[in-house]
Amino acid sequence: MSMLKKAAMDSFRLALIQMKVGTDKIRNVTNAIAHIRQAVVDQNPRVVALPECFNSPYGTKYFNDYAETIPDGYTTGKLSEIAKELNIYLVGGTIPERDTSDGRTLYNTCTVWSPSGELIAKHRKMHLFDIDVKGGIRFKESDVLTGGSEFTSFQIDNNFKIGVGICYDIRFEEMARIYRNDGCDMLIYPAAFNMTTGPLHWELLQRARANDLQLYVASISPARDPDFEYVAWGHSMVVDPWGKVVITAKENEEIVYADIDVSLNEKVRAQIPTSRQRRTDLYETVSKK
Amino acid sequence: MSMLKKAAMDSFRLALIQMKVGTDKIRNVTNAIAHIRQAVVDQNPRVVALPECFNSPYGTKYFNDYAETIPDGYTTGKLSEIAKELNIYLVGGTIPERDTSDGRTLYNTCTVWSPSGELIAKHRKMHLFDIDVKGGIRFKESDVLTGGSEFTSFQIDNNFKIGVGICYDIRFEEMARIYRNDGCDMLIYPAAFNMTTGPLHWELLQRARANDLQLYVASISPARDPDFEYVAWGHSMVVDPWGKVVITAKENEEIVYADIDVSLNEKVRAQIPTSRQRRTDLYETVSKK
Repeated sequence: MSMLKKAAMDSFRLALIQMKVGTDKIRNVTNAIAHIRQAVVDQNPRVVALPECFNSPYGTKYFNDYAETIPDGYTTGKLSEIAKELNIYLVGGTIPERDTSDGRTLYNTCTVWSPSGELIAKHRKMHLFDIDVKGGIRFKESDVLTGGSEFTSFQIDNNFKIGVGICYDIRFEEMARIYRNDGCDMLIYPAAFNMTTGPLHWELLQRARANDLQLYVASISPARDPDFEYVAWGHSMVVDPWGKVVITAKENEEIVYADIDVSLNEKVRAQIPTSRQRRTDLYETVSKK
Repeated sequence: MSMLKKAAMDSFRLALIQMKVGTDKIRNVTNAIAHIRQAVVDQNPRVVALPECFNSPYGTKYFNDYAETIPDGYTTGKLSEIAKELNIYLVGGTIPERDTSDGRTLYNTCTVWSPSGELIAKHRKMHLFDIDVKGGIRFKESDVLTGGSEFTSFQIDNNFKIGVGICYDIRFEEMARIYRNDGCDMLIYPAAFNMTTGPLHWELLQRARANDLQLYVASISPARDPDFEYVAWGHSMVVDPWGKVVITAKENEEIVYADIDVSLNEKVRAQIPTSRQRRTDLYETVSKK
């Protein structure tokens, strides 16, 4: 990726960390930190993003054991430190979160950290991954997790606003529309699709959101481990507001970079002006928050 | 398409008529009727669908001259007759419609006819095609057309419910969501994408709607005429509720057929149950009609 020049004022560089996740939590976090450090050394991104469930194996039997409180737990402490040290925005993938109020309720949670190491957003996966595809994948997050109930976005330097969803959240186009109506310029989804839903819908969902809403979409997957019980699809990806794939990883450990052109959204929206052609006299997507 | 067996009770056969459209209205209508007849002889479809603007060239300077009142105009009279004669449901593409009340207002309108020749639905294009893509297509329907303000659906034999949109309507995911919430099992879009938006978004939009809403989507384009001022993309298409392309035409005159498996929607919705996992406690798409 050495052909990337230094991002100008009207763009920012994004790095997606497609990393392996194993059963050793300390090792997972250490691996994440090492990759973040490598990305900054290699390409100096302003925003770095980790995948879903990067400190724990992805499986309902693991979540309770790997869960931490936020922001005082081990993992998010490390994320805060490295964001500050490297002066970056860090979309901290997700970890199993233990609710501090009852010590029992668990969420699948993404934290976002500012260049000064402050927690600027926390998103709890809103739509739990309960599916049962014949001859394919069966999974039921709701056996152990609770769904979040808040929309989550944050802003970076140039007032570029980023909405956060987690994996299965991307299937729900109304959630994405709420973000768009709220002024988001990009959607980021830490995610872990699998060998059934990956080939079927991974790219389609991202291109659909990007094109319908005329904004950037990025997703970050763990690297594929064919020997683990849940095999991630990989293919971390950035899609632009034309709905075109800007870059995609393959399935192994890899960091991919993209310069996000902050002005492209407005160019697309001017040329195909669906955002002002919506018939809000006839329909509307409403947030109940 | 001789591999298609006779459609069973739990499915119906759909024919998409990708036909040439020229400047001679009588010839256009005659050509449409001939193709419908051919489809019925060859494959005995229960539902036949025509493309957008099949009796008139697609261009704002033509619409007033080619417009007719509905249902007493020449073109829709012919559609009613052939539907009854052949005992089919006929999705009559679109024609420029002249409003009977003032004799002046024009719409881009789809009519749907029952096997007894009755008009069972009329959809006026809700979102007018006004775009200006740099180095690509510029078009402004609103110079001469008025947008419709009604959602439109109809039912066929097995209570399968079909929502109707026209071309640019497909870009507006909230309209499609309204149809889905209203119980539609399929969306049909007579359409005429072009050489700019066709390669960019034609397939993506149909697969996006089909996958997000877990229903069938069909689109019908005119055949491509490289010598005409508006060059249609072609590629009339059927997409299933997995978001997979079932069949697609190329760019020339062609009739494509698909057996629509009425039960597949429910199978997909049971396996990836997004329809009951939507967080309607947090958001909702509302119709204001």
